[in-house]
Amino acid sequence: MYRVGIDLGGTNIAAGIIDDNYQLISQASLPTGAFRPWQEMVNDLGDAVDMALQKAGLTAAECASIGIGSPGTCDSERGVVVRAYNLGWFEVPVCETLHDRFGIPVRLSNDANCAALAEVVAGAAKGRKDVVMVTLGTGVGGGIIIDGKIYAGMRSAGAELGHTVLVMDGEPCSCGRNGCWEAYASMTALIRQATRAAEAHPDSLLARQETLDGVSIFRCIDQGDETAKAVVDRWCEYVAAGLTDLVNALAPEMILLGGGVCRQGERILAPMREYVADHCFGQRQGAIPVIAAAALGNEAGIIGAASL
Amino acid sequence: MYRVGIDLGGTNIAAGIIDDNYQLISQASLPTGAFRPWQEMVNDLGDAVDMALQKAGLTAAECASIGIGSPGTCDSERGVVVRAYNLGWFEVPVCETLHDRFGIPVRLSNDANCAALAEVVAGAAKGRKDVVMVTLGTGVGGGIIIDGKIYAGMRSAGAELGHTVLVMDGEPCSCGRNGCWEAYASMTALIRQATRAAEAHPDSLLARQETLDGVSIFRCIDQGDETAKAVVDRWCEYVAAGLTDLVNALAPEMILLGGGVCRQGERILAPMREYVADHCFGQRQGAIPVIAAAALGNEAGIIGAASL
Repeated sequence: MYRVGIDLGGTNIAAGIIDDNYQLISQASLPTGAFRPWQEMVNDLGDAVDMALQKAGLTAAECASIGIGSPGTCDSERGVVVRAYNLGWFEVPVCETLHDRFGIPVRLSNDANCAALAEVVAGAAKGRKDVVMVTLGTGVGGGIIIDGKIYAGMRSAGAELGHTVLVMDGEPCSCGRNGCWEAYASMTALIRQATRAAEAHPDSLLARQETLDGVSIFRCIDQGDETAKAVVDRWCEYVAAGLTDLVNALAPEMILLGGGVCRQGERILAPMREYVADHCFGQRQGAIPVIAAAALGNEAGIIGAASL
Repeated sequence: MYRVGIDLGGTNIAAGIIDDNYQLISQASLPTGAFRPWQEMVNDLGDAVDMALQKAGLTAAECASIGIGSPGTCDSERGVVVRAYNLGWFEVPVCETLHDRFGIPVRLSNDANCAALAEVVAGAAKGRKDVVMVTLGTGVGGGIIIDGKIYAGMRSAGAELGHTVLVMDGEPCSCGRNGCWEAYASMTALIRQATRAAEAHPDSLLARQETLDGVSIFRCIDQGDETAKAVVDRWCEYVAAGLTDLVNALAPEMILLGGGVCRQGERILAPMREYVADHCFGQRQGAIPVIAAAALGNEAGIIGAASL
């Protein structure tokens, strides 16, 4: 049995077909062209699906379902993208529209939920039941898997893990609240923390970088810069404090971290694990989950969407 | 069909029998006598069950199961109380011991989980599927119900909602971490906040109380004391900030608050609801749950345990 997955991003629409083993057998993409009328954009979603089907030599009727991973708030029950600021989408009935075109079931979930599901069905958390995935990117995204299924709560609005508080009344967050985890643990936050440290330490290597990003900050550490090291050490604590909350609240078997920064591997994962073990309920006797990097990378979105 | 519930507390062992309608048809209690050898204490649990059975005119064989709600960390799968500091219990095989005596299935969960379950089967959240219960007492206890069942995660260690961070590196918490929600939102925290305010405002009515507790602080407000009002207003924000996190992370249909302070009703619930609506993801368009006081009071422990 084949399934279709669509990873809808702010830049690209990627569609793909997976087989019974969650292997991608074909893929196609089109530019998203955000902020056009939604009907045009959903039409392009359909065209990307047709392209992927054609490459695989399949028709829609030979597929069990189409799944869509979309940014923003998605109501899985109604099949509607409620609000996706970076697409300019509000109340877009994407499932109904694609169902009318292809005649097979169409399902929808948030992209972070899809990434988490992909890791459980085919990635680093394969076979696990209770898993939380945290993506460290421009923001901090979350996906909660309970008993092998996406848990998103009422109107699929849950798993906004980046928007739980780390420092009440602290740094302003994009969501309008202050002190959210995202405002301390995202890459945006890391870069802001590095920028401030560079200003405070004009003699540091950090202060002499042309641009501060997730690559240059770590390169400074490689070159022995103490200022950069202190920034990243503290940032790891911010990330790990939120992970500790997830351990105490949900006691998952596994926490997976996603986002490009995870390519830094053990240099960030090891201190985070230490922090969690020191701070979680019951400390080292507590229910400490496996904490690891996600495995699937760019394909997670399509695989997860197809698995909805 | 009848079921037996045991609410094991630091002071009393309360056992009771419920019928199909979750009505308590008999009840019995014995002093806990904490810190005795666990075999003696578990024997008293059994004696309390026998007393409740006798009052109801039933035998154990006429009951479907025995459920135990215990303080501390309980491993429901193994039926073992892993750690309950206020009983002096470590790795107590309570289910096996009572099963040997009564010959019917014996189940175990944390007391906060039992209270949450009771509200879902027979209380303020009757018929709801995704519910979080927060008990504001000496500490801040949590119970998570997902799809109508207790969710406690790996080794039943989850739902320690009081031990998620509100102010990173903030007030010391009993769990060994700093800045936990419990360290700001418990009654212990409220009293500490009131004590500090009384010291800072020696002319306040608050400063002239013989003892500061959950009753006298609110009485000061009734008598027009601005210092007491400011303390409680801020405490409501601390509670509500944690509730907002629960909304963003879990999007439950309902959040129930338990603990004696909930007798203050709308004077604390109304400002908490306002805070959540102002701060949750999507603000007033967000997935705002019903926020209400728990309904079952003292009987919740037995009813929830019996419903395991």
